Amino acid sequence: MHRFYFITDRKKFKKPFLDTIKEALDKGVRLIQIREKDLSDDELYDLTDKVLEVSKGYDAKIFINSRVDIAYMLGLDGVHLTSRSVPVSVVKRKFPDLIVGKSCHSVEDILKAQEEGADYVFISPIFEVEGKGKPIGIEGLKEVLEVAKVPVYALGGINNSNIEEVLKTGVYGIAGIRFFL
Amino acid sequence: MHRFYFITDRKKFKKPFLDTIKEALDKGVRLIQIREKDLSDDELYDLTDKVLEVSKGYDAKIFINSRVDIAYMLGLDGVHLTSRSVPVSVVKRKFPDLIVGKSCHSVEDILKAQEEGADYVFISPIFEVEGKGKPIGIEGLKEVLEVAKVPVYALGGINNSNIEEVLKTGVYGIAGIRFFL
Repeated sequence: MHRFYFITDRKKFKKPFLDTIKEALDKGVRLIQIREKDLSDDELYDLTDKVLEVSKGYDAKIFINSRVDIAYMLGLDGVHLTSRSVPVSVVKRKFPDLIVGKSCHSVEDILKAQEEGADYVFISPIFEVEGKGKPIGIEGLKEVLEVAKVPVYALGGINNSNIEEVLKTGVYGIAGIRFFL
Repeated sequence: MHRFYFITDRKKFKKPFLDTIKEALDKGVRLIQIREKDLSDDELYDLTDKVLEVSKGYDAKIFINSRVDIAYMLGLDGVHLTSRSVPVSVVKRKFPDLIVGKSCHSVEDILKAQEEGADYVFISPIFEVEGKGKPIGIEGLKEVLEVAKVPVYALGGINNSNIEEVLKTGVYGIAGIRFFL
Protein backbone atom coordinates (compact mmCIF):
# COMPACT_ATOMS: atom_id res chain seq x y z
CA MET A 1 0.00 0.00 0.00
CA HIS A 2 3.00 2.34 0.30
CA ARG A 3 2.98 2.77 -3.48
CA PHE A 4 -0.36 4.59 -3.47
CA TYR A 5 -0.02 8.35 -3.65
CA PHE A 6 -3.06 10.33 -2.56
CA ILE A 7 -3.65 13.81 -4.02
CA THR A 8 -6.13 15.92 -2.06
CA ASP A 9 -9.08 17.82 -3.50
CA ARG A 10 -11.31 18.77 -0.63
CA LYS A 11 -14.21 19.80 -2.88
CA LYS A 12 -14.56 16.18 -3.91
CA PHE A 13 -14.27 14.83 -0.36
CA LYS A 14 -17.44 13.47 1.19
CA LYS A 15 -16.20 13.93 4.75
CA PRO A 16 -14.34 16.83 6.43
CA PHE A 17 -10.81 17.29 5.10
CA LEU A 18 -8.83 15.96 8.05
CA ASP A 19 -11.17 13.00 8.54
CA THR A 20 -10.53 12.03 4.94
CA ILE A 21 -6.76 12.29 5.42
CA LYS A 22 -6.99 10.19 8.57
CA GLU A 23 -9.07 7.59 6.76
CA ALA A 24 -6.58 7.36 3.89
CA LEU A 25 -3.76 6.92 6.42
CA ASP A 26 -5.74 4.25 8.27
CA LYS A 27 -6.26 2.46 4.95
CA GLY A 28 -2.47 2.38 4.54
CA VAL A 29 -1.76 5.36 2.30
CA ARG A 30 1.75 6.69 3.05
CA LEU A 31 2.13 9.36 0.37
CA ILE A 32 -0.10 12.42 0.45
CA GLN A 33 0.04 15.56 -1.68
CA ILE A 34 -1.88 18.59 -0.49
CA ARG A 35 -3.27 20.26 -3.58
CA GLU A 36 -5.80 22.94 -2.65
CA LYS A 37 -5.14 25.68 -5.14
CA ASP A 38 -7.93 28.05 -4.22
CA LEU A 39 -6.81 28.61 -0.63
CA SER A 40 -5.00 31.75 0.45
CA ASP A 41 -1.43 31.27 1.66
CA ASP A 42 -2.38 31.51 5.33
CA GLU A 43 -5.20 28.99 4.93
CA LEU A 44 -2.96 26.60 3.00
CA TYR A 45 -0.22 26.94 5.61
CA ASP A 46 -2.65 26.21 8.45
CA LEU A 47 -4.28 23.28 6.66
CA THR A 48 -0.90 21.75 5.84
CA ASP A 49 0.16 22.13 9.45
CA LYS A 50 -2.96 20.23 10.52
CA VAL A 51 -2.27 17.44 8.03
CA LEU A 52 1.19 17.07 9.59
CA GLU A 53 -0.45 16.84 12.99
CA VAL A 54 -2.95 14.17 11.85
CA SER A 55 -0.28 12.13 10.06
CA LYS A 56 2.07 11.98 13.04
CA GLY A 57 2.97 8.42 13.92
CA TYR A 58 1.99 7.01 10.51
CA ASP A 59 5.45 7.36 8.95
CA ALA A 60 3.79 8.94 5.90
CA LYS A 61 5.46 11.30 3.45
CA ILE A 62 3.65 14.62 3.05
CA PHE A 63 4.01 16.72 -0.08
CA ILE A 64 2.47 19.98 -1.19
CA ASN A 65 1.65 21.11 -4.71
CA SER A 66 3.85 23.94 -6.04
CA ARG A 67 4.43 25.80 -2.76
CA VAL A 68 8.10 25.23 -2.07
CA ASP A 69 8.08 27.84 0.69
CA ILE A 70 5.33 26.12 2.66
CA ALA A 71 7.03 22.74 2.16
CA TYR A 72 10.27 24.13 3.58
CA MET A 73 8.74 26.20 6.37
CA LEU A 74 6.69 23.31 7.72
CA GLY A 75 9.39 20.70 7.14
CA LEU A 76 7.37 18.59 4.71
CA ASP A 77 9.02 15.71 2.87
CA GLY A 78 8.69 17.33 -0.51
CA VAL A 79 7.00 19.42 -3.12
CA HIS A 80 5.19 18.45 -6.30
CA LEU A 81 5.76 20.68 -9.33
CA THR A 82 3.88 21.05 -12.61
CA SER A 83 4.55 22.79 -15.91
CA ARG A 84 3.20 25.99 -14.32
CA SER A 85 5.51 25.78 -11.29
CA VAL A 86 8.97 27.14 -10.53
CA PRO A 87 11.87 25.17 -12.11
CA VAL A 88 12.76 21.73 -10.68
CA SER A 89 16.50 22.38 -11.02
CA VAL A 90 16.41 25.57 -8.95
CA VAL A 91 14.29 23.96 -6.23
CA LYS A 92 16.74 21.04 -6.05
CA ARG A 93 19.70 23.41 -5.77
CA LYS A 94 18.18 25.81 -3.24
CA PHE A 95 16.26 23.26 -1.14
CA PRO A 96 18.42 20.13 -1.36
CA ASP A 97 16.54 18.31 1.39
CA LEU A 98 13.16 18.41 -0.33
CA ILE A 99 11.95 15.49 -2.45
CA VAL A 100 10.84 17.04 -5.75
CA GLY A 101 8.22 15.44 -7.96
CA LYS A 102 7.08 16.58 -11.39
CA SER A 103 3.90 16.13 -13.41
CA CYS A 104 4.67 14.67 -16.84
CA HIS A 105 2.51 13.88 -19.82
CA SER A 106 4.95 12.37 -22.31
CA VAL A 107 8.31 10.63 -22.70
CA GLU A 108 9.85 14.05 -23.48
CA ASP A 109 8.51 15.46 -20.20
CA ILE A 110 10.01 12.56 -18.27
CA LEU A 111 13.42 12.96 -19.89
CA LYS A 112 13.39 16.69 -19.10
CA ALA A 113 12.24 16.18 -15.50
CA GLN A 114 15.00 13.62 -14.91
CA GLU A 115 17.62 15.91 -16.38
CA GLU A 116 16.45 18.72 -14.10
CA GLY A 117 16.79 16.45 -11.09
CA ALA A 118 13.23 15.37 -10.27
CA ASP A 119 13.16 12.61 -7.66
CA TYR A 120 9.95 11.05 -8.97
CA VAL A 121 7.39 11.77 -11.68
CA PHE A 122 3.69 11.47 -12.34
CA ILE A 123 2.61 10.36 -15.79
CA SER A 124 -0.94 11.30 -16.74
CA PRO A 125 -3.57 10.76 -17.87
CA ILE A 126 -3.35 6.99 -18.30
CA PHE A 127 -7.05 6.70 -19.12
CA GLU A 128 -9.69 9.18 -20.23
CA VAL A 129 -10.29 11.99 -17.71
CA GLU A 130 -12.46 14.94 -18.63
CA GLY A 131 -10.43 18.04 -19.40
CA LYS A 132 -7.08 16.29 -18.94
CA GLY A 133 -6.10 15.79 -22.59
CA LYS A 134 -5.34 12.67 -24.63
CA PRO A 135 -4.74 9.59 -22.48
CA ILE A 136 -1.42 7.82 -23.04
CA GLY A 137 -2.90 4.38 -22.37
CA ILE A 138 -1.15 1.27 -21.14
CA GLU A 139 1.14 1.22 -24.19
CA GLY A 140 2.16 4.83 -23.59
CA LEU A 141 2.85 3.99 -19.96
CA LYS A 142 5.11 1.13 -21.02
CA GLU A 143 7.10 3.47 -23.28
CA VAL A 144 7.52 5.88 -20.39
CA LEU A 145 8.75 3.10 -18.10
CA GLU A 146 11.43 2.17 -20.63
CA VAL A 147 13.11 5.60 -20.35
CA ALA A 148 12.31 6.42 -16.72
CA LYS A 149 15.18 6.26 -14.25
CA VAL A 150 13.15 7.66 -11.33
CA PRO A 151 9.99 6.23 -9.73
CA VAL A 152 6.93 6.71 -11.93
CA TYR A 153 3.42 7.08 -10.53
CA ALA A 154 0.56 6.45 -12.96
CA LEU A 155 -2.30 8.94 -12.65
CA GLY A 156 -5.64 9.54 -14.29
CA GLY A 157 -8.75 7.44 -14.67
CA ILE A 158 -7.40 4.49 -12.70
CA ASN A 159 -10.08 2.52 -10.86
CA ASN A 160 -10.76 -0.96 -9.52
CA SER A 161 -11.61 -2.32 -12.94
CA ASN A 162 -8.38 -1.26 -14.67
CA ILE A 163 -5.80 -1.09 -11.89
CA GLU A 164 -4.62 -4.65 -12.54
CA GLU A 165 -3.39 -3.85 -16.05
CA VAL A 166 -1.68 -0.70 -14.78
CA LEU A 167 0.17 -2.58 -12.07
CA LYS A 168 1.18 -5.31 -14.56
CA THR A 169 3.32 -2.75 -16.44
CA GLY A 170 5.65 -2.71 -13.45
CA VAL A 171 4.91 0.96 -12.72
CA TYR A 172 6.33 2.08 -9.36
CA GLY A 173 3.08 3.42 -7.96
CA ILE A 174 -0.43 4.71 -8.52
CA ALA A 175 -1.51 8.28 -7.83
CA GLY A 176 -5.03 9.58 -7.60
CA ILE A 177 -7.66 11.69 -5.99
CA ARG A 178 -10.88 9.72 -6.17
CA PHE A 179 -9.22 6.35 -5.79
CA PHE A 180 -8.95 6.66 -2.03
CA LEU A 181 -12.28 8.29 -1.26
CA MET B 1 13.94 59.32 -3.59
CA HIS B 2 15.09 56.10 -1.88
CA ARG B 3 12.11 56.34 0.45
CA PHE B 4 9.61 55.73 -2.33
CA TYR B 5 8.46 52.13 -2.56
CA PHE B 6 6.92 51.10 -5.86
CA ILE B 7 4.35 48.27 -5.92
CA THR B 8 3.74 46.81 -9.36
CA ASP B 9 0.37 46.20 -10.97
CA ARG B 10 0.94 45.61 -14.64
CA LYS B 11 -2.73 45.92 -15.55
CA LYS B 12 -2.53 49.58 -14.59
CA PHE B 13 0.74 50.20 -16.43
CA LYS B 14 0.53 52.25 -19.61
CA LYS B 15 3.81 50.86 -20.99
CA PRO B 16 5.19 47.30 -21.11
CA PHE B 17 6.04 45.93 -17.67
CA LEU B 18 9.84 46.07 -17.84
CA ASP B 19 9.83 49.51 -19.47
CA THR B 20 7.77 50.77 -16.53
CA ILE B 21 10.20 49.23 -14.04
CA LYS B 22 13.14 50.78 -15.88
CA GLU B 23 11.43 54.16 -15.90
CA ALA B 24 10.76 54.01 -12.16
CA LEU B 25 14.42 53.11 -11.57
CA ASP B 26 15.55 55.97 -13.81
CA LYS B 27 13.33 58.31 -11.82
CA GLY B 28 15.21 57.23 -8.69
CA VAL B 29 12.95 54.54 -7.18
CA ARG B 30 15.08 52.08 -5.22
CA LEU B 31 12.40 49.87 -3.65
CA ILE B 32 10.21 47.72 -5.86
CA GLN B 33 7.67 45.07 -4.89
CA ILE B 34 6.48 42.68 -7.58
CA ARG B 35 2.82 42.05 -6.93
CA GLU B 36 1.21 40.23 -9.84
CA LYS B 37 -1.18 37.86 -8.18
CA ASP B 38 -2.85 36.39 -11.25
CA LEU B 39 0.34 34.96 -12.77
CA SER B 40 1.16 31.26 -12.58
CA ASP B 41 4.28 30.35 -10.59
CA ASP B 42 6.42 29.88 -13.69
CA GLU B 43 5.33 33.21 -15.16
CA LEU B 44 5.92 35.01 -11.87
CA TYR B 45 9.35 33.40 -11.52
CA ASP B 46 10.36 34.43 -15.05
CA LEU B 47 9.01 37.97 -14.68
CA THR B 48 10.80 38.43 -11.36
CA ASP B 49 14.02 37.18 -12.93
CA LYS B 50 13.66 39.80 -15.67
CA VAL B 51 13.08 42.55 -13.11
CA LEU B 52 16.35 41.54 -11.43
CA GLU B 53 18.06 41.76 -14.79
CA VAL B 54 16.63 45.23 -15.54
CA SER B 55 17.45 46.56 -12.08
CA LYS B 56 21.11 45.48 -12.16
CA GLY B 57 23.44 48.38 -11.49
CA TYR B 58 20.76 50.52 -9.84
CA ASP B 59 21.43 49.32 -6.29
CA ALA B 60 17.68 48.87 -5.85
CA LYS B 61 16.00 46.50 -3.41
CA ILE B 62 13.60 44.05 -5.04
CA PHE B 63 10.75 42.45 -3.10
CA ILE B 64 7.99 40.08 -4.06
CA ASN B 65 4.51 39.84 -2.61
CA SER B 66 3.84 36.69 -0.55
CA ARG B 67 6.05 34.28 -2.49
CA VAL B 68 8.84 33.50 -0.07
CA ASP B 69 10.08 30.63 -2.25
CA ILE B 70 10.56 32.82 -5.32
CA ALA B 71 12.24 35.51 -3.20
CA TYR B 72 14.70 32.94 -1.88
CA MET B 73 15.27 31.07 -5.12
CA LEU B 74 16.06 34.24 -7.07
CA GLY B 75 18.01 35.89 -4.27
CA LEU B 76 15.68 38.88 -3.91
CA ASP B 77 16.17 41.30 -1.04
CA GLY B 78 12.91 40.44 0.61
CA VAL B 79 9.30 39.44 0.68
CA HIS B 80 6.19 41.42 1.49
CA LEU B 81 3.49 39.63 3.49
CA THR B 82 -0.17 40.39 4.10
CA SER B 83 -2.84 39.08 6.45
CA ARG B 84 -3.45 36.28 3.90
CA SER B 85 0.22 35.24 3.75
CA VAL B 86 2.34 32.74 5.67
CA PRO B 87 3.44 33.90 9.17
CA VAL B 88 6.13 36.58 9.47
CA SER B 89 7.80 34.83 12.41
CA VAL B 90 8.28 31.56 10.52
CA VAL B 91 9.66 33.33 7.44
CA LYS B 92 12.13 35.22 9.64
CA ARG B 93 13.25 32.01 11.32
CA LYS B 94 13.53 29.88 8.18
CA PHE B 95 14.84 32.54 5.79
CA PRO B 96 16.93 34.81 8.06
CA ASP B 97 18.52 36.69 5.16
CA LEU B 98 15.25 37.96 3.70
CA ILE B 99 13.90 41.39 4.60
CA VAL B 100 10.28 40.83 5.61
CA GLY B 101 7.62 43.51 5.29
CA LYS B 102 4.04 43.34 6.45
CA SER B 103 0.84 45.10 5.39
CA CYS B 104 -0.85 46.75 8.38
CA HIS B 105 -4.10 48.66 8.78
CA SER B 106 -4.08 49.65 12.45
CA VAL B 107 -1.92 50.25 15.50
CA GLU B 108 -2.73 46.69 16.62
CA ASP B 109 -1.46 45.28 13.30
CA ILE B 110 1.79 47.21 13.67
CA LEU B 111 2.38 45.98 17.22
CA LYS B 112 1.75 42.41 16.10
CA ALA B 113 3.98 42.69 13.01
CA GLN B 114 6.83 44.08 15.13
CA GLU B 115 6.47 41.33 17.68
CA GLU B 116 6.62 38.74 14.90
CA GLY B 117 9.84 40.28 13.59
CA ALA B 118 8.77 42.31 10.56
CA ASP B 119 11.59 44.51 9.27
CA TYR B 120 9.28 47.21 7.93
CA VAL B 121 5.53 47.79 7.62
CA PHE B 122 3.02 49.36 5.30
CA ILE B 123 0.16 51.26 6.85
CA SER B 124 -2.88 51.70 4.64
CA PRO B 125 -5.06 53.23 3.46
CA ILE B 126 -4.06 56.73 4.49
CA PHE B 127 -6.70 58.34 2.27
CA GLU B 128 -9.83 57.04 0.58
CA VAL B 129 -9.19 54.22 -1.91
CA GLU B 130 -12.09 52.32 -3.43
CA GLY B 131 -12.48 48.88 -1.89
CA LYS B 132 -9.66 49.37 0.63
CA GLY B 133 -11.69 50.08 3.77
CA LYS B 134 -11.81 53.04 6.11
CA PRO B 135 -8.85 55.41 5.68
CA ILE B 136 -6.81 56.06 8.82
CA GLY B 137 -6.03 59.65 7.80
CA ILE B 138 -3.11 61.82 8.86
CA GLU B 139 -4.10 61.58 12.53
CA GLY B 140 -4.22 57.78 12.34
CA LEU B 141 -0.80 57.78 10.68
CA LYS B 142 0.60 59.90 13.53
CA GLU B 143 -0.74 57.41 16.10
CA VAL B 144 0.92 54.59 14.20
CA LEU B 145 4.24 56.42 14.10
CA GLU B 146 4.16 56.81 17.86
CA VAL B 147 4.23 53.04 18.43
CA ALA B 148 6.24 51.97 15.38
CA LYS B 149 9.80 50.80 15.99
CA VAL B 150 10.40 49.70 12.38
CA PRO B 151 10.28 51.82 9.21
CA VAL B 152 6.70 52.69 8.22
CA TYR B 153 5.64 53.27 4.63
CA ALA B 154 2.40 55.16 4.12
CA LEU B 155 0.18 53.72 1.38
CA GLY B 156 -3.16 54.48 -0.18
CA GLY B 157 -4.53 57.50 -1.99
CA ILE B 158 -1.33 59.52 -1.75
CA ASN B 159 -0.83 61.95 -4.64
CA ASN B 160 0.92 65.23 -5.45
CA SER B 161 -1.73 67.29 -3.70
CA ASN B 162 -1.52 65.51 -0.33
CA ILE B 163 2.01 64.08 -0.17
CA GLU B 164 3.33 67.13 1.70
CA GLU B 165 1.12 66.54 4.72
CA VAL B 166 2.03 62.83 4.71
CA LEU B 167 5.75 63.57 4.69
CA LYS B 168 5.31 66.16 7.46
CA THR B 169 4.29 63.38 9.87
CA GLY B 170 7.87 62.14 9.70
CA VAL B 171 6.83 58.83 8.11
CA TYR B 172 9.80 56.81 6.87
CA GLY B 173 8.58 56.40 3.30
CA ILE B 174 5.74 56.42 0.81
CA ALA B 175 4.50 53.32 -1.00
CA GLY B 176 2.23 53.22 -4.00
CA ILE B 177 1.28 51.84 -7.36
CA ARG B 178 -0.05 54.77 -9.37
CA PHE B 179 2.26 57.32 -7.82
CA PHE B 180 5.15 56.36 -10.08
CA LEU B 181 3.30 55.78 -13.35
